[in-house]
Amino acid sequence: MFSDPHELAAAVAAGERRAVARALTWVEDRHPGWDTLLALLFPRTGRAAVVGVTGAPGAGKSSLTDAFITRLRGDGRSVAVVAVDPSSPFTGGAILGDRIRMQRHTGDPGVFIRSMSNRGHLGGLAATTPRAVAVLDAAGFDVIFVETVGVGQAEVEVASATDLVVVVVTPGWGDSVQANKAGVLEVGDVYVVNKADRPGVDAAVADLEEMLALGAIRRPVVTTSALDGTGVDEALGAVLERWEAAAADGALEARRRRNLRAEVRRALHESLVARIDDRPDGDDVLAAVERRELDPWTAAERILVSRS
Amino acid sequence: MFSDPHELAAAVAAGERRAVARALTWVEDRHPGWDTLLALLFPRTGRAAVVGVTGAPGAGKSSLTDAFITRLRGDGRSVAVVAVDPSSPFTGGAILGDRIRMQRHTGDPGVFIRSMSNRGHLGGLAATTPRAVAVLDAAGFDVIFVETVGVGQAEVEVASATDLVVVVVTPGWGDSVQANKAGVLEVGDVYVVNKADRPGVDAAVADLEEMLALGAIRRPVVTTSALDGTGVDEALGAVLERWEAAAADGALEARRRRNLRAEVRRALHESLVARIDDRPDGDDVLAAVERRELDPWTAAERILVSRS
Repeated sequence: MFSDPHELAAAVAAGERRAVARALTWVEDRHPGWDTLLALLFPRTGRAAVVGVTGAPGAGKSSLTDAFITRLRGDGRSVAVVAVDPSSPFTGGAILGDRIRMQRHTGDPGVFIRSMSNRGHLGGLAATTPRAVAVLDAAGFDVIFVETVGVGQAEVEVASATDLVVVVVTPGWGDSVQANKAGVLEVGDVYVVNKADRPGVDAAVADLEEMLALGAIRRPVVTTSALDGTGVDEALGAVLERWEAAAADGALEARRRRNLRAEVRRALHESLVARIDDRPDGDDVLAAVERRELDPWTAAERILVSRS
Repeated sequence: MFSDPHELAAAVAAGERRAVARALTWVEDRHPGWDTLLALLFPRTGRAAVVGVTGAPGAGKSSLTDAFITRLRGDGRSVAVVAVDPSSPFTGGAILGDRIRMQRHTGDPGVFIRSMSNRGHLGGLAATTPRAVAVLDAAGFDVIFVETVGVGQAEVEVASATDLVVVVVTPGWGDSVQANKAGVLEVGDVYVVNKADRPGVDAAVADLEEMLALGAIRRPVVTTSALDGTGVDEALGAVLERWEAAAADGALEARRRRNLRAEVRRALHESLVARIDDRPDGDDVLAAVERRELDPWTAAERILVSRS
């Protein structure tokens, strides 16, 4: 089924579940015709609320996303999740384990969950995540969550592929995640202190609010206990409210413009690297660099000029 | 002084300290002539041992680097350090604070320490770090440390700019740095469990060794207490031994070849992005994407084709 991108695009646009799954595989594998498929689907995108959910491993991102799904389904909204796994021999299993909970929505036609490996791509996102989001958006899902393991700069990248980012932290996060201060705090649109049943939650909230204040950043900070549902309504409310405010005041449009530009640049980079890898004279230039006869920066200019 | 890149390159090659400082500023700021400067210096590179030092904030990277400096100086080797700071309103101060210790080498002409901001560049390295390393290498430093705050994928990037990477962890790291399992463990060449005076050091070593074994990765794991000097000789010995073994068996040459190719690609990306940002027709294409008349992936191909 679906060997033709036009046929597949039509089925995705009609919301056919198997077509969506197939289209995601096409974009992830760069199956022949993926570019035509996306060209056909792209004009249908821009309707979904695309929400990044990030935070350190164990923060409870999947539980929170799961709780959001349940509430959104109660409101009759359809939901898709793209869960990006670091592709590591060490963590694959553990992270998939965390996501088993979400699988209980599998029977619900209004929920679509997809795991993607980041395949060593820098920054925590899979290179093809924005394409997967485009497929799900064109398929008509109301809300699309992009769940990433947020460490360091991963959040910056997820911010450049979503409408807003929820940063999930836990009590005690201040000890371990100093690092996050560097990247996380700038990119979060909503902060959730999850596992609020644990000791230290007030300190975590105070710490977070102080750091936001230091950076003169105003953001909602919500405490939740995703497993028993405490605070989840407030957290989801904060997310939707912020999204709607951004949609109303033009901030959403501006962010999407920036994100699309970023995606063009990422695609350009990918195409260019592929072409360089293919080019015999690119190889000659690289060999000269390896012999230290030519510096890498002049080499880059030379490859660019030789292409124009 | 040094307004001409030829003059500056000659002074750097002669190891003149002020020239080195100026050259680093040139490459960091992309001062006019930086490309000529690097073209002149590049054939003189490839002599230094370039060692990445990475790990979570607070792991003691600076203390360890400081202890390494003292020992290398005792052996008569000259040492340069490029310390990459995340450019954040939140952490700048704290990280600089950690590095104050190293400043005691300031009076030693055989030691050169430079902080660079990563200026929002993804992955923990400054975009210009490999250029700074080239300057220091051409200036004749025997060992160059590249110290980065390693979180998530930052280590992958530092690995692509150095001969080997020392990953510094602390007892208790298993709790907080599960994330690191994803990225850190694949890129480390030598593991140091620092702060070995703290409880939990044996567990940390066992945890690390188990994870390395799981990934079928053989790497030295050394415990240190950088502040009082315990284990520092062993750690430095492991680093130098591994570097020399790689130099002897061709692994170093292969890694440097890969790294130079990676640097050409990074430079290409940078040049290309700069050109796209400058081009009026690039703007037209981007505007069409923003109106969702053209998808980002076709847009990227169109910009590439229009350039050739």
